[in-house]
Amino acid sequence: MLRVAGGITAPRGFHAAGVASGVKRSGRADLSVVLSDLPCVAAGVFTTNRVRAAPVVLGAQRLDRSPSGIRGILTVSGVANALTGPEGIDDNLRLLTAAETELGLPEGSLLPACTGVIGPRLPMDRVVAALPQLKTALAGAGDGAERAAHAILTTDTRAKVASVRARLSDGTVVRVGGMAKGSGMIAPRLAPVHATTLAFLTTDARARPGPLGRLLARETDSTFNMLSVDGDTSTNDTVYLLANGAAGGANADDDPAFATAVHAVLESLARQVARDGEGATKLLTVHVVGARTIEDARAAARAVVGSTLVKAALFGADPNVGRIACALGYSGARLDPDRMDVSITRPRQSVPLIVQGRPAPSLENGGGSRVRDLLRQLDEVPLEVRLHEGRASATAWGCDLSYAYVQINAAYRT
Amino acid sequence: MLRVAGGITAPRGFHAAGVASGVKRSGRADLSVVLSDLPCVAAGVFTTNRVRAAPVVLGAQRLDRSPSGIRGILTVSGVANALTGPEGIDDNLRLLTAAETELGLPEGSLLPACTGVIGPRLPMDRVVAALPQLKTALAGAGDGAERAAHAILTTDTRAKVASVRARLSDGTVVRVGGMAKGSGMIAPRLAPVHATTLAFLTTDARARPGPLGRLLARETDSTFNMLSVDGDTSTNDTVYLLANGAAGGANADDDPAFATAVHAVLESLARQVARDGEGATKLLTVHVVGARTIEDARAAARAVVGSTLVKAALFGADPNVGRIACALGYSGARLDPDRMDVSITRPRQSVPLIVQGRPAPSLENGGGSRVRDLLRQLDEVPLEVRLHEGRASATAWGCDLSYAYVQINAAYRT
Repeated sequence: MLRVAGGITAPRGFHAAGVASGVKRSGRADLSVVLSDLPCVAAGVFTTNRVRAAPVVLGAQRLDRSPSGIRGILTVSGVANALTGPEGIDDNLRLLTAAETELGLPEGSLLPACTGVIGPRLPMDRVVAALPQLKTALAGAGDGAERAAHAILTTDTRAKVASVRARLSDGTVVRVGGMAKGSGMIAPRLAPVHATTLAFLTTDARARPGPLGRLLARETDSTFNMLSVDGDTSTNDTVYLLANGAAGGANADDDPAFATAVHAVLESLARQVARDGEGATKLLTVHVVGARTIEDARAAARAVVGSTLVKAALFGADPNVGRIACALGYSGARLDPDRMDVSITRPRQSVPLIVQGRPAPSLENGGGSRVRDLLRQLDEVPLEVRLHEGRASATAWGCDLSYAYVQINAAYRT
Repeated sequence: MLRVAGGITAPRGFHAAGVASGVKRSGRADLSVVLSDLPCVAAGVFTTNRVRAAPVVLGAQRLDRSPSGIRGILTVSGVANALTGPEGIDDNLRLLTAAETELGLPEGSLLPACTGVIGPRLPMDRVVAALPQLKTALAGAGDGAERAAHAILTTDTRAKVASVRARLSDGTVVRVGGMAKGSGMIAPRLAPVHATTLAFLTTDARARPGPLGRLLARETDSTFNMLSVDGDTSTNDTVYLLANGAAGGANADDDPAFATAVHAVLESLARQVARDGEGATKLLTVHVVGARTIEDARAAARAVVGSTLVKAALFGADPNVGRIACALGYSGARLDPDRMDVSITRPRQSVPLIVQGRPAPSLENGGGSRVRDLLRQLDEVPLEVRLHEGRASATAWGCDLSYAYVQINAAYRT
């Protein structure tokens, strides 16, 4: 597997564009499309929040009815189209139909996504009026993938893209591309047919709907579902994967090399979302090994990245090992408090924090201030937790809790 | 039931004292005792965190072995005595024995509690050396209850006390007194025989160990277990209830008037802890009605007070109703998103925020800024959530998320 350039349009036969329709008062891009020349087999996982945004309801319906005739994804950012009732569904459906007409696509071939403020309805006049501009942008020169990746952002400070190339067992070379957004209200719990982070993946591999859906669900569980910025599971979270088969060859949906490529793109995007968490100054990676079951490993890793107190300590570069132990203790994971070890583990460097359930001796007599200096320097803090209970492992991604997070969220709409 | 003065020593036969032993470098009081002239029937509920502080392990053991010979509670604040292994247990046991000797109490008659930094061991020399001073303070003049209530605090900005008087069905007048601490690492999940909030209740009512334990567990479930400052369930949370029977009369443990009195003291203390959450500027009360089951009601109420985004919006006095709906949606409570109502409901004033799953029309056209002004003025924001699914209800208590929370927790130990 090789990392390649191109993002969402790295796979053959995909195009993308992003324009400013005026949903965002700032004038930044807010309307985007990803399009395939060929019909795609598509899969999606959506938020498990019981309050589901209109595009989540519609997207799940469309995948249910015709997972094999999908041509693209139309995304509005700035407004979530959630808490908008039946009118919100009607709005989004009218927008999709207008876009399909404008772009010459079959009815029902576009998947919807929205992200932004919950409550307000889509400003239909502005968005529909911008569709011709979107069509022009698709045909025009320039990097549509980059514009699309920017047009799906809200409080994000940077675009998130990833793309890889992999060789399948039958020799076929396929590409997997992706883009994502997400900075706050990030603690996705995505499940098939029902997941505000948005992540869109494209591939030129061939696939069948059922296996592709199962593969996406499985790889989302170990990536986007292990991500937390603030513990709030959004009404709009959506991951879509579109496979247009342009690479030819055998079905890739049961090829380990394809699963590895999809995982790599999802993991890269999840890390980028965590690193760009609202107000974040540091990425926190928690790798748990030696858990009794995968569920235990995931629960333990998630509890540490989700702990408000661990996050605040990290912002202060404070090696407060008690808070890490506390989070592990309430995670629900089965563990022996007197056996667990925690360290900062980097290539060629391991700094013990907890040894057999006790603060590491090296933290005493000024050792704490050396760890504090290290924490200040790192912009990614990789914690390794060893439970010595079994063989299961998991990784979770999060970030620190800063003054800027409070500022952003105490006045998001003003 | 009448509120009365006196706090933890309002019931007959209880005394209290608090002194500075030097555990806290600030010189503030950090060693306290609550004592009964008569042996007490005692009950306790402890944190469900798998990493349990030494005093939690010891306290549960002592209640298990002799719930009827308890004379008091000895509390050290500044150090949690957690993550200290077998040595931490030995330290605490030695401290209890030394205190029992100094105060002329039978062995095993004191219950332990600690709160503070996780990791360091108890500074035994300083604490043991302060025991004679504690004995003198007990005998001395002045308000021992107030000194004890201050001596159990850590990052708290004020003492939490409550006391009531109730008349039982047989005519006996009993008193229930209480004190609590807690400001950060507050999301207790207390369970019998196994919460760092500390709450101690005393009563001069008569009681039997089993029924008293069940009553305490039940009343804790609807009070301290519905409290969240930051979602972190501590290694040290403990609620003790000591009944010395000095009021005489029949057993109070199955008398509804007694349960009501215990509930009133626990609820008052839980509200005081939420109001004094680290960095908090506002108390948030969420009352859910019309849930299908009590578990649904509690899950919904807890999700709203626990939402980082709701808490940050509250700090900014931002009527961000979408975040409330989002939290209800991921709470796990069964609900119909198109039927739920949310309002700020105060005596003689109800301000709708969500009506049948949609932002309240009154929020439009400048209505939002009126709600913002109201939120700015209120130091207690009472939200009422109506689910229209059934008849169950629950209340949860929390607070806003401020810059000060981040400041306190990015550098707690420095």
